[in-house]
Amino acid sequence: MTRLLLCAGTTRTAAIDGISAAGATPTAMAHTPGADAEILVYGRPVRSPVVPVSPTGCPTPAVVTRAVIERLGFDTTVVDAGLAEPTGAPTVSVGARPGDDIRERDPVPCAPGAFAAARAFGRSLPDDELFLAETIPGGTTTALGVLTALGAQDVLGSDDGAVSSSLPENPLDRKRAVVADALAASALEPGDCADEPLVALRRAGDPVLAVVAGITAGALEADTAVTFAGGTQLIAAAAVVRAGGYDGPLSLATTSFVDDDPSVDLATAADALDLSLTVTDPRFTDDHPAMAAYLAGEAKEGVGMGGALALADRAGLPMAEVRDAFVDVYDRLLATEVSA
Amino acid sequence: MTRLLLCAGTTRTAAIDGISAAGATPTAMAHTPGADAEILVYGRPVRSPVVPVSPTGCPTPAVVTRAVIERLGFDTTVVDAGLAEPTGAPTVSVGARPGDDIRERDPVPCAPGAFAAARAFGRSLPDDELFLAETIPGGTTTALGVLTALGAQDVLGSDDGAVSSSLPENPLDRKRAVVADALAASALEPGDCADEPLVALRRAGDPVLAVVAGITAGALEADTAVTFAGGTQLIAAAAVVRAGGYDGPLSLATTSFVDDDPSVDLATAADALDLSLTVTDPRFTDDHPAMAAYLAGEAKEGVGMGGALALADRAGLPMAEVRDAFVDVYDRLLATEVSA
Repeated sequence: MTRLLLCAGTTRTAAIDGISAAGATPTAMAHTPGADAEILVYGRPVRSPVVPVSPTGCPTPAVVTRAVIERLGFDTTVVDAGLAEPTGAPTVSVGARPGDDIRERDPVPCAPGAFAAARAFGRSLPDDELFLAETIPGGTTTALGVLTALGAQDVLGSDDGAVSSSLPENPLDRKRAVVADALAASALEPGDCADEPLVALRRAGDPVLAVVAGITAGALEADTAVTFAGGTQLIAAAAVVRAGGYDGPLSLATTSFVDDDPSVDLATAADALDLSLTVTDPRFTDDHPAMAAYLAGEAKEGVGMGGALALADRAGLPMAEVRDAFVDVYDRLLATEVSA
Repeated sequence: MTRLLLCAGTTRTAAIDGISAAGATPTAMAHTPGADAEILVYGRPVRSPVVPVSPTGCPTPAVVTRAVIERLGFDTTVVDAGLAEPTGAPTVSVGARPGDDIRERDPVPCAPGAFAAARAFGRSLPDDELFLAETIPGGTTTALGVLTALGAQDVLGSDDGAVSSSLPENPLDRKRAVVADALAASALEPGDCADEPLVALRRAGDPVLAVVAGITAGALEADTAVTFAGGTQLIAAAAVVRAGGYDGPLSLATTSFVDDDPSVDLATAADALDLSLTVTDPRFTDDHPAMAAYLAGEAKEGVGMGGALALADRAGLPMAEVRDAFVDVYDRLLATEVSA
């Protein structure tokens, strides 16, 4: 049995101007993870007052993951990894709280406790295989924070530090500046946390990375197969797990949109962190506006999209069917928005 | 699409000696609803430290519901309707809190708020059809409390008030005495809450009934079909909903074990409350000890068992397959207990 676990949380880092496209406005962004969870579980928002779209109207990658769920029917469980707003989705509690802006001194004080509870949870699950997904606006910036604190900022191929972005134009210089401020606020130099991954999570990370890393650690202890279903944020989770001394098998399943991002080199990261890499292309076309937005470089990944596409591919579900289901879910979301 | 919603909660009424068999000891009983939810979602407990069995070893009806889920694969969502102990199952929050012993003055102060939040949740769900289930030790006593406060204590065919029981010998006199004390503590006479069902829930009920009734009210407003998947506790929820002026179509799907309970007359209740009644017999045999316990009158119903059996029947799943799946899940639970 395969279970996709969506770790849904927030960091106030997302409110920094120009950092994230995971919501139409900063206020809407705080609702994005809960709305993503609702789309995954119910097919549309039920309690969240927003349909997550980028400022230009690109729909959340939750739409793709839900589309695959509707065709394949695999189990999905949402973990509250620091939600800031109520969600109507059922969530597992592991003691995570919303993360603060990483330029504050102690932005993720819940990190050690959430890691520990997530580890116990990951160890206890009876599934053969877990796909771990995330939804957290601003999460690539906190991922860069963690990678830098670990001294692994070059793992994606750039000596200056790199991660991917939900924006077509990756605001990488801005992210690097935020991370520099974050490390300064905690009196850390890059690499100071190489042997203390929980400190990296707490001082420069976010609650979602703490929960993903904890579940992974527990799953590896139970010999449960783990696939990171996502992009460069999950590379940071992998770096945390490896820094913690876990050398078990790990996979990363992501989208062609992350693979095509010129900011990052996934193969270098997969090699450095010993990750088995799967890249899946949903073969979107310009004929549909939501697909065209992805082709233009928006969103790229998130909410398990790359993992869901890999599961579809493994099950022999044609990408044409995935695209049809994607349009079905998207049309339903638009109808929700009009009636709301 | 059909969704089974399990409303899981607690009332300290369960700790009254001789009231409930939903757990081996009163301490274990507080963990029963969370463990039931985990069995439904994962197939076995993952965080709860107990495998729910009666004092004589009869396994929780969650085993039957999970067995059907494993063969049919319908959607299942757990609502936190007042859990007292942590669960590893994902839960939806509607503001419910554990209920106090109904002999206290204000045992369920969360009832109006939880009803309102549950109603909004029920109204928002996109499903065509909801099956509503409960797990709450002591719940038949609080059900009798609500029925009596509403003046509907005779709805199950006995003028003195009756509900079913998870014990082979229904401690009905004890329950009636507890309910009499409960009404006295709130200075209520039987029937005083006939037009105030929220007061009945708050003064003589439990949080699970408040949540079930709230979801039902919302679902009826949204023209979503509702089936109560359970026994006499859900009769009390139906009485609350009818007292609230909701006259939409409602069904009750329960087990042959409740139907065979000489304490109660389901047909009378179905008639009085305008419920379409479905009774399903899993055709258990004495060959298996867990099945033999049900045949001896233990457990009878709960955690959606009757609804799951009805869904199996509707889908054409042979009861022989349900029984095989039941034994599979049961054996897995025993293995969990040994290794824990």
